[in-house]
Amino acid sequence: MKQISQEKLDHIVKESMPFTRTGKVATYIPELSKANADALGIWIYDVNGETIHAGDVDTRFTIQSVSKVVTLIYALEAYGEEVFTRIGVEQTADAFNSIIKLETRNNGKPLNPLINAGAIATTSFIIEKEGKDGFIKLSNFLRKLAQNESIAVNMSVYESEQRTGDTNRALAYFQKGVKTFSASVEDVLETYFKTCSLEVQAKDLAQIARVIANNGLNPETDEQLFSAQTARMTKAIMSTCGMYDSSGHFALHVGIPSKSGVGGGIMSVVPGKFGIGIIGPALDDKGNSAAGVELLSRLSKEYSLSIFG
Amino acid sequence: MKQISQEKLDHIVKESMPFTRTGKVATYIPELSKANADALGIWIYDVNGETIHAGDVDTRFTIQSVSKVVTLIYALEAYGEEVFTRIGVEQTADAFNSIIKLETRNNGKPLNPLINAGAIATTSFIIEKEGKDGFIKLSNFLRKLAQNESIAVNMSVYESEQRTGDTNRALAYFQKGVKTFSASVEDVLETYFKTCSLEVQAKDLAQIARVIANNGLNPETDEQLFSAQTARMTKAIMSTCGMYDSSGHFALHVGIPSKSGVGGGIMSVVPGKFGIGIIGPALDDKGNSAAGVELLSRLSKEYSLSIFG
Amino acid sequence: MKQISQEKLDHIVKESMPFTRTGKVATYIPELSKANADALGIWIYDVNGETIHAGDVDTRFTIQSVSKVVTLIYALEAYGEEVFTRIGVEQTADAFNSIIKLETRNNGKPLNPLINAGAIATTSFIIEKEGKDGFIKLSNFLRKLAQNESIAVNMSVYESEQRTGDTNRALAYFQKGVKTFSASVEDVLETYFKTCSLEVQAKDLAQIARVIANNGLNPETDEQLFSAQTARMTKAIMSTCGMYDSSGHFALHVGIPSKSGVGGGIMSVVPGKFGIGIIGPALDDKGNSAAGVELLSRLSKEYSLSIFG
Amino acid sequence: MKQISQEKLDHIVKESMPFTRTGKVATYIPELSKANADALGIWIYDVNGETIHAGDVDTRFTIQSVSKVVTLIYALEAYGEEVFTRIGVEQTADAFNSIIKLETRNNGKPLNPLINAGAIATTSFIIEKEGKDGFIKLSNFLRKLAQNESIAVNMSVYESEQRTGDTNRALAYFQKGVKTFSASVEDVLETYFKTCSLEVQAKDLAQIARVIANNGLNPETDEQLFSAQTARMTKAIMSTCGMYDSSGHFALHVGIPSKSGVGGGIMSVVPGKFGIGIIGPALDDKGNSAAGVELLSRLSKEYSLSIFG
Repeated sequence: MKQISQEKLDHIVKESMPFTRTGKVATYIPELSKANADALGIWIYDVNGETIHAGDVDTRFTIQSVSKVVTLIYALEAYGEEVFTRIGVEQTADAFNSIIKLETRNNGKPLNPLINAGAIATTSFIIEKEGKDGFIKLSNFLRKLAQNESIAVNMSVYESEQRTGDTNRALAYFQKGVKTFSASVEDVLETYFKTCSLEVQAKDLAQIARVIANNGLNPETDEQLFSAQTARMTKAIMSTCGMYDSSGHFALHVGIPSKSGVGGGIMSVVPGKFGIGIIGPALDDKGNSAAGVELLSRLSKEYSLSIFG
Repeated sequence: MKQISQEKLDHIVKESMPFTRTGKVATYIPELSKANADALGIWIYDVNGETIHAGDVDTRFTIQSVSKVVTLIYALEAYGEEVFTRIGVEQTADAFNSIIKLETRNNGKPLNPLINAGAIATTSFIIEKEGKDGFIKLSNFLRKLAQNESIAVNMSVYESEQRTGDTNRALAYFQKGVKTFSASVEDVLETYFKTCSLEVQAKDLAQIARVIANNGLNPETDEQLFSAQTARMTKAIMSTCGMYDSSGHFALHVGIPSKSGVGGGIMSVVPGKFGIGIIGPALDDKGNSAAGVELLSRLSKEYSLSIFG
Repeated sequence: MKQISQEKLDHIVKESMPFTRTGKVATYIPELSKANADALGIWIYDVNGETIHAGDVDTRFTIQSVSKVVTLIYALEAYGEEVFTRIGVEQTADAFNSIIKLETRNNGKPLNPLINAGAIATTSFIIEKEGKDGFIKLSNFLRKLAQNESIAVNMSVYESEQRTGDTNRALAYFQKGVKTFSASVEDVLETYFKTCSLEVQAKDLAQIARVIANNGLNPETDEQLFSAQTARMTKAIMSTCGMYDSSGHFALHVGIPSKSGVGGGIMSVVPGKFGIGIIGPALDDKGNSAAGVELLSRLSKEYSLSIFG
Repeated sequence: MKQISQEKLDHIVKESMPFTRTGKVATYIPELSKANADALGIWIYDVNGETIHAGDVDTRFTIQSVSKVVTLIYALEAYGEEVFTRIGVEQTADAFNSIIKLETRNNGKPLNPLINAGAIATTSFIIEKEGKDGFIKLSNFLRKLAQNESIAVNMSVYESEQRTGDTNRALAYFQKGVKTFSASVEDVLETYFKTCSLEVQAKDLAQIARVIANNGLNPETDEQLFSAQTARMTKAIMSTCGMYDSSGHFALHVGIPSKSGVGGGIMSVVPGKFGIGIIGPALDDKGNSAAGVELLSRLSKEYSLSIFG
């Protein structure tokens, strides 16, 4: 790749590796606790299709909250700004699974689509519009963005989520109770949990991110997968809300629109330049990949990738 | 009855009647909206068994949150103060169905057993200990306290609660999610909703209240239905938490340990003297019977019934 | 005294003494940290004037939040229920100096007159009505209730409060900012801090409590110091709000309307029977005298003093 | 100017003008209510010094919260990232003058430097380091950035702020009370209020913004007024927190790092390209210039100025 050298990338991954030990693998879904805490890998596509990678990029992991970006893109493309009648676009200063603001602000309208309450609301939109086909359409869209037909639900993670996802059930039932949505809670959660349980690799996240970086255009096929306006909105929301309640800290120190998931993945978009996928299952106390954030911070500094200059 | 004259009681009911128009029948459970907004009735037993009543005492209504007192008594008798490892005893300053304090205080331990979150937690205790028999035992206990074998679940209200009780589901799943309890949420809610849907008359509430007023002793059969200590604790909790977030206001202006329900019932205990049951389905903005509170306020002033002198 | 034996009272104090070690002397006002953490004493008057005491009753201490009861009585007598247009009567589930509910509930109307925000609001009422004479009138009223002309401000505590009372300043300025009151914040705080800094002994609190227990009538002089209605309201508010956010727990286990202060004092009212003053400077984590609460719990059980039977 | 035509800019201002009627001039500081609600003007500098303007650019107004950006830049330059030990960088989902998060999150560390609590904390830093000279140094720095020696405090606004700034006093005393800072509250507030009361024109904001857009370098004098790193951090924080609790909405629809003030000013930074100053005193319900936001939205769309592509 023109800008990023293999040697430097290897070096940055190596320097970031010790930070895996500052985090912990997620345990609140039992299946997630089996992940390899020491893994760290990065895959980068530039918008012209060139690629580079370093570290443990073969690691498979469930996409978890990174999927919230794809759910958002799908909904924006399908239904336009009507989505924002149900979901806000402001950062939360509470935890990723907090229920408080549903009660105290906007009467059940979640703060943004990249926290659990908000992604559940976006999913409810899709279920109300598409019915039971919602998940098939959404997951097919994700496969198309990732250019990988083989992406599938990890059923043991999905079942683990279904069994133990009580806090997400609370978020969904609360919204149903205050009429944020009308769809069946169990239908919404089935799609929400399945989407979170899609198994991917760093490369897949990098492919999706590249399309966002390229304003919705698949540079290889010249197919416009979603509109430039949707791409712009997505980057804005990732930038302000993508890293939970440390989104501001991340903007300050990294400045690359990103979304993390508790499976250890981070998807990052360098507008006009790169799509990046990272895997590092050991999480910091905000729920973001500890070494992944370090890696992005070093990469951003080394190559001046911050959108803030 | 020695102390309370029929003439005065009729007068107080008549004076309180216009206050039915300051309230509204509950609508959040569709079945409840069918209640007669104009009804107002009161039934009083003294601890020696004498009785007096006035107004629409034939009205049938679902017990709703008044049942929380019986659930509490049952749990205290069966499991003692272990109950308070799971549920607090402090008044809430939030709405009766608020979820906020579950997140911000005590990590999922509800504030007290007389708000929705707390009664769900008490019910979970019963389900964990008794299994599926929980509801049978609990409802039998209630029938015994009320000396009325014919009390039964109003199935159309129950089904309405099951269909529309999403906020209560949120409260239950949130507590399950933070490990406040381990029982099945659906089992807990089935018992919770059924208990709320028991159909009673003012007379039944008066009977139950009389036993509490008489320190757990059924004065007619001389049977100790629950301990004096349980009776004392119950009166204390009713006094501080029984009227939702206007419990303090009610203590100031009425001063009789009471518990209200959204079916329009109020159960009131004048220690050592009276058990009182009231029905008045039109509710004030806190969820308490509007005319019922007025009636109790006048009765308390007329006969100096406040426990605060 | 008829009911309470010296021997038993000595025994109860001795049994409660070890609980001084479970608490800590208040340090947030530097002067308070000089108190004797091991002290524990109780003074009891019955309504007929007989008296009994045990433990370290010579200890002098500043009245602190116990004064909030006297401020409330003064305001109720002088201005009637207009007081409740400015201050609520509901228990808080937040800390004694919390500012949250001022913003989230009732737009700046504090929850009740026995937490800091509420007592500041009651004091603002007095300042607006009486001007600079407010403190003189209020403290003279307190001296009269205590039948002790020598009660005076401990100036080093007062100055310590003025210097370090920033959280109370925040509570006052917030209320001023949302127009809860119009008086000068500094005038209000001067009176508030001076009232808190009045130096008393257990005996003084017992005298004041006896008048409340006797419905406002000084039994020795037959002077009605305040109305029976004010006495009733005061007992109700002490019962639901007097022990900060453990008021419910205290109602359950003690059941005597009481008010604590961070100086280690507790003032307790057994309606129709006793006025009680306690000193025990070591505080539990709610800000109540640790050994004092234990002592009251034992006394209540031994002599069945709970108003809840 | 190369990119922006006078004709189009005039047209955009004209199209945005009706939105002045959707907002209201700030009234919480009495002096602010005298502003001209119908005014709307914009001044743009490109980084090479070319300039263009439209609308009521002669209007004078107090800088208010726009000054928070300059206070932040000053503090970052003088003390580096130590600033972030005292102040966070996360967006608030509460109102601009909310006190809640000071109590519930991080024990008194304000969420970010662009809300009132945070700017007070930044100012406290300056006062602790510089003493009474703090304001002189800070305001001189602002004059230098604006290249306008004549900028001065509007004394009647300053006195109005001092007289009525009780909510800001509450925010300051609360932070002092929990030891967020040690400086004198009155010294901190004097500087805070004076900084807010500096009187500027749209042109001044555009000058300051241009230096930020140019990474701290004054393009005319080639003087590095602050570091590129400070410029980057400032743009990141403006982007995530600059428009109060509608910062996310603004990022989505405008995408230009900006900061608003209740005087009606908005300062906007198009990285590498433009510095923009806007005046429009009629505010929306979040406290941002109603027509100013509209104007920026149209300008951003017309010239593709969003940093999100």
